[in-house]
Amino acid sequence: MKTVYVKLSQGNYPIHIGPGLLAKADYQSLLQQPSAIIVTDDTVAPLYLSTLTNALDNQGINFETIVIPTGESYKNLETVSLILDRLLELKIERKTTLIALGGGVIGDLAGFAAAIYLRGIPLIQIPTTLLSQADASVGGKTGVNHPYSKNMIGALHQPKAVIIDPDTLQTLSEREISSGLAEVIKFGLIQDASFLHWLETNMHRLWKHDSEALTEAIYRSCCYKAEATSQDEAETGPRLLLNIGHTFGHAIETAMGYGEWLHGEAVGAGTVMAAHLSQRAGWISSDDVKHVESLMHLARLPIRGPRLGSQRYLELMQNDKKVENGRLRLILLKKLGKAEVVTWTERTMLENVIHHCSH
Amino acid sequence: MKTVYVKLSQGNYPIHIGPGLLAKADYQSLLQQPSAIIVTDDTVAPLYLSTLTNALDNQGINFETIVIPTGESYKNLETVSLILDRLLELKIERKTTLIALGGGVIGDLAGFAAAIYLRGIPLIQIPTTLLSQADASVGGKTGVNHPYSKNMIGALHQPKAVIIDPDTLQTLSEREISSGLAEVIKFGLIQDASFLHWLETNMHRLWKHDSEALTEAIYRSCCYKAEATSQDEAETGPRLLLNIGHTFGHAIETAMGYGEWLHGEAVGAGTVMAAHLSQRAGWISSDDVKHVESLMHLARLPIRGPRLGSQRYLELMQNDKKVENGRLRLILLKKLGKAEVVTWTERTMLENVIHHCSH
Repeated sequence: MKTVYVKLSQGNYPIHIGPGLLAKADYQSLLQQPSAIIVTDDTVAPLYLSTLTNALDNQGINFETIVIPTGESYKNLETVSLILDRLLELKIERKTTLIALGGGVIGDLAGFAAAIYLRGIPLIQIPTTLLSQADASVGGKTGVNHPYSKNMIGALHQPKAVIIDPDTLQTLSEREISSGLAEVIKFGLIQDASFLHWLETNMHRLWKHDSEALTEAIYRSCCYKAEATSQDEAETGPRLLLNIGHTFGHAIETAMGYGEWLHGEAVGAGTVMAAHLSQRAGWISSDDVKHVESLMHLARLPIRGPRLGSQRYLELMQNDKKVENGRLRLILLKKLGKAEVVTWTERTMLENVIHHCSH
Repeated sequence: MKTVYVKLSQGNYPIHIGPGLLAKADYQSLLQQPSAIIVTDDTVAPLYLSTLTNALDNQGINFETIVIPTGESYKNLETVSLILDRLLELKIERKTTLIALGGGVIGDLAGFAAAIYLRGIPLIQIPTTLLSQADASVGGKTGVNHPYSKNMIGALHQPKAVIIDPDTLQTLSEREISSGLAEVIKFGLIQDASFLHWLETNMHRLWKHDSEALTEAIYRSCCYKAEATSQDEAETGPRLLLNIGHTFGHAIETAMGYGEWLHGEAVGAGTVMAAHLSQRAGWISSDDVKHVESLMHLARLPIRGPRLGSQRYLELMQNDKKVENGRLRLILLKKLGKAEVVTWTERTMLENVIHHCSH
């Protein structure tokens, strides 16, 4: 087992990473009282719920379970409201821990419910997808979508611990692996070109579900994410860089209907757009752009977005949380391995890039 | 103008108190960018909205306004959802400040919307009732009710400033003044018997809407509240004492239908119950209990709760946020001016007190 710590002013929390950890983790030591409420979805429940509940049973921990429907289209305030109703019916107390077992949607939804139920109860994230293990379960962001835009409603609610069992990736679909890889590649692009090299060398192992390679990719991603969170919990500075490709990507997800494009697929296409814009701004070379595209290709991600028309892209991008005084703020690449937040007001170049990168 | 500071690890914020402040406050210095979104209700809007918007206009601040229906029965997730929809339609940005103009319901509702919109935007509280000026607007508690119990869903979201203009109390109904006095009396009961004496001496001035006396009562209450918040923001220790009477009171509010009993009315009756229980536990004398009742009488508050039956009281009290391992935690009086958190498991005495104190 490897452990990474997220260091925050209000206390640190561990990210434990290891094959088989779902069954073997020491849950008891992470709880305030021996009671838990598990929130999961109807895809994950048949696969991994009994492994978790057996472990809790063996450790003398009481639990209840809430199972919700699977998918991004349920990541909304209505589902949160249903979870809250159930927490109240079950008389879940303030010191009972909510365990979010599932992918990014479960982590966001259940994490948000934990943030606002009784003004906040303890939370443990047990991510079961590559995307949530390598990125989404760490850092405390929780929330839901709104028809107008992604993740517009939410709260920062740090977990007490993150427990990552890469063995749960064995059942993951190819699309879900691809989606996770988009966020893994992100860490290399914004701050460590050597990690890009590692990914290129080891991508074939990841595709073979090689446990050691998966664990390494997740571990390194968690190190980047933990450091960014420790430096800038509220995301007013360096943590913003982790949003590369996301302003474009959120527009794609919203336009296509939540769940049609997986988050990582949209982020992959969005990151390619960010790379093209970085090149036109004169920061990176066309070879660098090709390098980014080839990485996305290796990850079997789309390198073009849907043809929505640049007007529609710009309109949706305008709803981004980072917008200030009506002006977009985008994450662009200074070089491979280094990114910057840029206030972007020029319109023609942006439209051209969107046009070029969508089909 | 008097100013009290709430001191927190993440920064301090001021509570400015002064007659006429609604028109005169320096809003510009409190905003991150010169734009604001005002949330108020249809009772307060015709009375005080134009005073505020004129002041913002004069200071070159752009604003939009959201007006919601008045009353505790609207303090729910549906209304929050409507506010969020409107914030999104208006494309309110992350650095725009939400100004909550109104009583405790507006502070809680709009404060909660500010807490979860884009994972949190700046908030200024401008309370316009005695209850919210003396208590609810300070300390960062925000949230909504659930059919099962009061304030079950919410977030801690500290304001950037609280602006209190006691002149807005001139239009307040007698019931609303009484309701506020319950929370004012609370501060004396739990930590300063000399303030109880001041209240007895000055109650007739408060009832005549004497501006100086009102300002003094609010100022002293804010000092107590600011200190409790600074000591224990998350309410795991001493701040819990401010909930005296609230476990009983919330049961009354929930049972009767939100808005039927005003919050302070229910807290007043609940505080009398807490006093009786404190006496039966052998901590205070029957003269002390009479003293508490006479204070509530001076404040024109009910000293008896509704006759719901003690079973119903206990059932509703069991939903309290302070319940731990199924056990009630109540705030009781050690003497007038000193309170303690007590884990309460004895049933008969509690039933007898509820029976005695309801009619």
